[in-house]
Amino acid sequence: MSVVPVAIVGANGYSGEELCALLARHPSIRIAGVSSRTHAGKPVGDVLPRLAGLPTFAGVNFVDSNVDVLLATGAQYFFLALPHGLAAEFALPLVSADRRVIDLSADFRLRDAEVYREFYGEEHPAPEALSEAVYGIPELHREQIAGARLVASAGCYPTSILLPLVPLLRAGLIDAGDIAVASASGVSGAGRKADVTLLYAECNESLRAYGIPKHRHLSEIEQELGAAAGRPVVITFVPHLAPMTRGIHTTTFTRLAPGATPEQVRAALDAAYADEPFVRVREALPDTKNVNGTNFVDIAVRFDARAGRLLLLSAEDNLVKGAAGQAVQNFNLMAGFDETTALL
Amino acid sequence: MSVVPVAIVGANGYSGEELCALLARHPSIRIAGVSSRTHAGKPVGDVLPRLAGLPTFAGVNFVDSNVDVLLATGAQYFFLALPHGLAAEFALPLVSADRRVIDLSADFRLRDAEVYREFYGEEHPAPEALSEAVYGIPELHREQIAGARLVASAGCYPTSILLPLVPLLRAGLIDAGDIAVASASGVSGAGRKADVTLLYAECNESLRAYGIPKHRHLSEIEQELGAAAGRPVVITFVPHLAPMTRGIHTTTFTRLAPGATPEQVRAALDAAYADEPFVRVREALPDTKNVNGTNFVDIAVRFDARAGRLLLLSAEDNLVKGAAGQAVQNFNLMAGFDETTALL
Amino acid sequence: MSVVPVAIVGANGYSGEELCALLARHPSIRIAGVSSRTHAGKPVGDVLPRLAGLPTFAGVNFVDSNVDVLLATGAQYFFLALPHGLAAEFALPLVSADRRVIDLSADFRLRDAEVYREFYGEEHPAPEALSEAVYGIPELHREQIAGARLVASAGCYPTSILLPLVPLLRAGLIDAGDIAVASASGVSGAGRKADVTLLYAECNESLRAYGIPKHRHLSEIEQELGAAAGRPVVITFVPHLAPMTRGIHTTTFTRLAPGATPEQVRAALDAAYADEPFVRVREALPDTKNVNGTNFVDIAVRFDARAGRLLLLSAEDNLVKGAAGQAVQNFNLMAGFDETTALL
Amino acid sequence: MSVVPVAIVGANGYSGEELCALLARHPSIRIAGVSSRTHAGKPVGDVLPRLAGLPTFAGVNFVDSNVDVLLATGAQYFFLALPHGLAAEFALPLVSADRRVIDLSADFRLRDAEVYREFYGEEHPAPEALSEAVYGIPELHREQIAGARLVASAGCYPTSILLPLVPLLRAGLIDAGDIAVASASGVSGAGRKADVTLLYAECNESLRAYGIPKHRHLSEIEQELGAAAGRPVVITFVPHLAPMTRGIHTTTFTRLAPGATPEQVRAALDAAYADEPFVRVREALPDTKNVNGTNFVDIAVRFDARAGRLLLLSAEDNLVKGAAGQAVQNFNLMAGFDETTALL
Repeated sequence: MSVVPVAIVGANGYSGEELCALLARHPSIRIAGVSSRTHAGKPVGDVLPRLAGLPTFAGVNFVDSNVDVLLATGAQYFFLALPHGLAAEFALPLVSADRRVIDLSADFRLRDAEVYREFYGEEHPAPEALSEAVYGIPELHREQIAGARLVASAGCYPTSILLPLVPLLRAGLIDAGDIAVASASGVSGAGRKADVTLLYAECNESLRAYGIPKHRHLSEIEQELGAAAGRPVVITFVPHLAPMTRGIHTTTFTRLAPGATPEQVRAALDAAYADEPFVRVREALPDTKNVNGTNFVDIAVRFDARAGRLLLLSAEDNLVKGAAGQAVQNFNLMAGFDETTALL
Repeated sequence: MSVVPVAIVGANGYSGEELCALLARHPSIRIAGVSSRTHAGKPVGDVLPRLAGLPTFAGVNFVDSNVDVLLATGAQYFFLALPHGLAAEFALPLVSADRRVIDLSADFRLRDAEVYREFYGEEHPAPEALSEAVYGIPELHREQIAGARLVASAGCYPTSILLPLVPLLRAGLIDAGDIAVASASGVSGAGRKADVTLLYAECNESLRAYGIPKHRHLSEIEQELGAAAGRPVVITFVPHLAPMTRGIHTTTFTRLAPGATPEQVRAALDAAYADEPFVRVREALPDTKNVNGTNFVDIAVRFDARAGRLLLLSAEDNLVKGAAGQAVQNFNLMAGFDETTALL
Repeated sequence: MSVVPVAIVGANGYSGEELCALLARHPSIRIAGVSSRTHAGKPVGDVLPRLAGLPTFAGVNFVDSNVDVLLATGAQYFFLALPHGLAAEFALPLVSADRRVIDLSADFRLRDAEVYREFYGEEHPAPEALSEAVYGIPELHREQIAGARLVASAGCYPTSILLPLVPLLRAGLIDAGDIAVASASGVSGAGRKADVTLLYAECNESLRAYGIPKHRHLSEIEQELGAAAGRPVVITFVPHLAPMTRGIHTTTFTRLAPGATPEQVRAALDAAYADEPFVRVREALPDTKNVNGTNFVDIAVRFDARAGRLLLLSAEDNLVKGAAGQAVQNFNLMAGFDETTALL
Repeated sequence: MSVVPVAIVGANGYSGEELCALLARHPSIRIAGVSSRTHAGKPVGDVLPRLAGLPTFAGVNFVDSNVDVLLATGAQYFFLALPHGLAAEFALPLVSADRRVIDLSADFRLRDAEVYREFYGEEHPAPEALSEAVYGIPELHREQIAGARLVASAGCYPTSILLPLVPLLRAGLIDAGDIAVASASGVSGAGRKADVTLLYAECNESLRAYGIPKHRHLSEIEQELGAAAGRPVVITFVPHLAPMTRGIHTTTFTRLAPGATPEQVRAALDAAYADEPFVRVREALPDTKNVNGTNFVDIAVRFDARAGRLLLLSAEDNLVKGAAGQAVQNFNLMAGFDETTALL
């Protein structure tokens, strides 16, 4: 099998570092470049000590995050692990130069520039690219991902919320008008940035909601829920910060559609994910510690007959299935590798 | 001011230990006895090293958890920090002997023995006492508590859920038919018991739901919500275990009653708690770390106009306002002390 | 008893916040002022939500950290909870104006300006004050503290290291030439500052040494050890950062002096601390969780007969006995209150 | 390459679970059996949810931990992940039946039955096997491991202590008579057992020493140090429990041998480990978070010129290089695979 040259742009954040660690296990890639604006010139292992000693990164130095420099690396696939708003600067010229891009940021996840403006408070920097980009959850859009030039790899909250709900909305088993979500995320989800609110002593023994009622990720969640339901969907989403490094747990409150049963719900999830290598529909309630360090999403269902509510519970590692692992899964699809390569 | 002799029954659990620590700051009590079946005879400070060196417990040894022994201590007030089902054995004889009892267990929190049977799966051991016991949240039942012989000090989840909701139900501002609650608790809430699922390595980096859909505490929550609403209330309640020692965070999803506004909601909460020493209705979102080690409950409100949902957020220390602090607050009321003694 | 007006300068760090929380329990003080350069004008409870709702701070707004402003508050005692190097700017003018100062920083802990230059890499800003300042560990210098105008309240590592060692050096029971110390501190010890290395995701599941081999605190530790031994003492000190908010644990490796026995060591510690309200010499090994939230230091001794080494173990809360609690204890001595006021 | 059938005996502890997770990435093995006395008959993924969905364990049920049952699985290599004292029951019959055994317990790590009696307080159950077993740290005993029938895979504390010290003792660069070690371990090192002292609420915000002065692991540490030094070595070892799931950090205090220099020490470590795939001698101080989830040991050196002490610092994942990873590394050597297979 040929070896594919890849580059990681913005590798010094948590998602970028995780991506490097996963790619170090990929037998069919070669690291053509790893970039960082602040660390250009330094050995990767000096900046990211977790990666020191891995043969994949032996002798690899950061290059500058600059399109020309990146193109010169010879990479055919580019992973963009950049903050919101910056990815567009790289994605367009790379795609124009016939490279394929897996973007881990939120920049290309929306189909509608108007929705982008509403949720992000500014014009989209490259609205013409929105129609080309494919929303990157393989379980939902496998075929389009395989052929895409630009994949907007889905984020952590959306993945944990969409995977339980989409099959049920597609099957018309739940009330799309009554969905409320409580998620809790580990602190790495907020990124590696010098922010007092993210200090150990601020997050330890702390559980708090934030970003309500209109978190930016709502826009992509509702876009995909609407597509599944065949009509616009508006939900309530309350994210919480929990004292852990990794992991997202999502509890979704909804109601059965008229005539639907809890058994049909469980059967629909089983059917949707029976052949999926990374979705585990289980009887046991999900626990972030069981998915941390893996690309799995665990899902369970409960029915509260007293109150007439359906409960969907899911857990994933925000840095793996919620970021770097999903990006590699998308890449495997795009490059024609077995989808699970480097991920099991 | 006279000094009141008190006893703590079952002091070696987390609530009992916290109770001892709080009572050590109370200027108007004397520890007449501290009991434990497993530690009878040992110095309190040897079993609970946090209490070693406190003058209040100098020379105090555990006595057996036995009614006659306890009566012989001369205590006038008894705090029962016992597991569910055991408190009844002590509460009745102590009350019969004209002592006053603050029970931290769930044994006397329900008014209806039938509901007890439904949720606890067995007959109530002393149904005749249920009508005498007063549900112990001072902010809701201050007057009855002051005169009660047996106070069923409310638990951690119920306190965090009831305090935001009750004033709104009393005022008819929310839809009592549409309430769903997601709570997260620190691990101390599960007690000091040798259980593999509570090990550090099982709870760290772990977030998981449990006890759904019919957690036992639902029964007392719905009892009090129903009383506030003037009609039966059924809710959905999803408790989660979070990787922290202390703290409960509760996010409640509900809807405004027809014609009600978010401003009315905030005003109702402000009015209800303006003079309460331990309830802080704040604009900032609650965070468990701000209430840990205190008897405060923090409450905030948000309105999700897009989805038409009202969000209530609250935080408390499960061992203080959710257990030992509330017990002391109840005791202060019963004994005629300033309600905040030993708690600020 | 008269009420003493006090001010806290630089109250928005972890030590300052803890100091406020402790002073809120002090029956004989009045908060004349709380200062912060960044938060001047804001209500204390808005910036430090843990303090919201405490009657002591009701209506108290931050004032600017400015000497004239501070003098105008009418405070007689000033707690300086400022970063290293800044305290001198406040301490001298306040003392000159006949106020008494408890400085929580390291600025006045050394007697010798030369040692200061060696360890801090700059000239001491006010060398003339060094002879006036008293090193603030009440168990070691109680009488001088009581009469001092300027107390340099000792830091967290030094307190945990000095309390076990000083009585043994004074009694000549250990080999002052062979002392090596391994300490581990919670992350709050590093302060509330936006620093990537202190992020939750950098400190959780992390244990690491730092600041070796010449940590700044070595200078004050060796100063006090030397005073106890009657001759210069040089030790090895390895601090570690542990994944917890609070607490310091210190393990000291030393050897018995010729002819000395482990029994004499234990007896010397027992004798030194029998009447001390905040030092617990116990058989059980110290555990930070037993001292967190308290002003206690726990100490234990073990003798490794195989290797001929004496082991001293100690634990304290770095923010209480290691900072704010010790400052209040010093204040109580200076102001003539019972030393334990607000601390038990 | 042929596929080797392997079995894991006692897979439901933390080391056993980690071993299963690592073996799931091994391309040249087949799981012939996974055993557990308490879970025989159950699907592996039901008991260990982290392993659910891994193709390697699809359809694999636990079998009873019984020698005949285990032999009947057809496995050629057996990993014993059993509590101390139990491994001997399995190791001897398996070796007699011409199988090869990697024992993760301490049962066969000592060469001398007398030392076993001294440290374990009982007779060794199979003293005749002690001379056959090879101490399983590949970096120290690679050749003997490759040919061994019974490898006593080294434990977590010993690995972190021996790897920095052995090359220095072999080279005569340090004073073998003056070695003191302070280690801190994550709680998973204590195993998955229902023990109140290991509860989350007992270990969080807790740092404490334990097992001093004569921890059992001292015996194997001193055995290997003595072999390296060419004479008996006695050290002081103080293990601590730190609030984290994984990771061991070790700080070793020693002194240079007469005439030796810090530069020689660093050069000796560099030389010893330059070609080792899993030992990283780095300038930066080790941090457990950089090795967690990996088979790396990170080592750094500092010289405290003031006190004349040499400091060695090391970090590893107690469940990987300290247990399961080391076992797989030993297995790879025994079975003739590349030593890093499944470990990078």
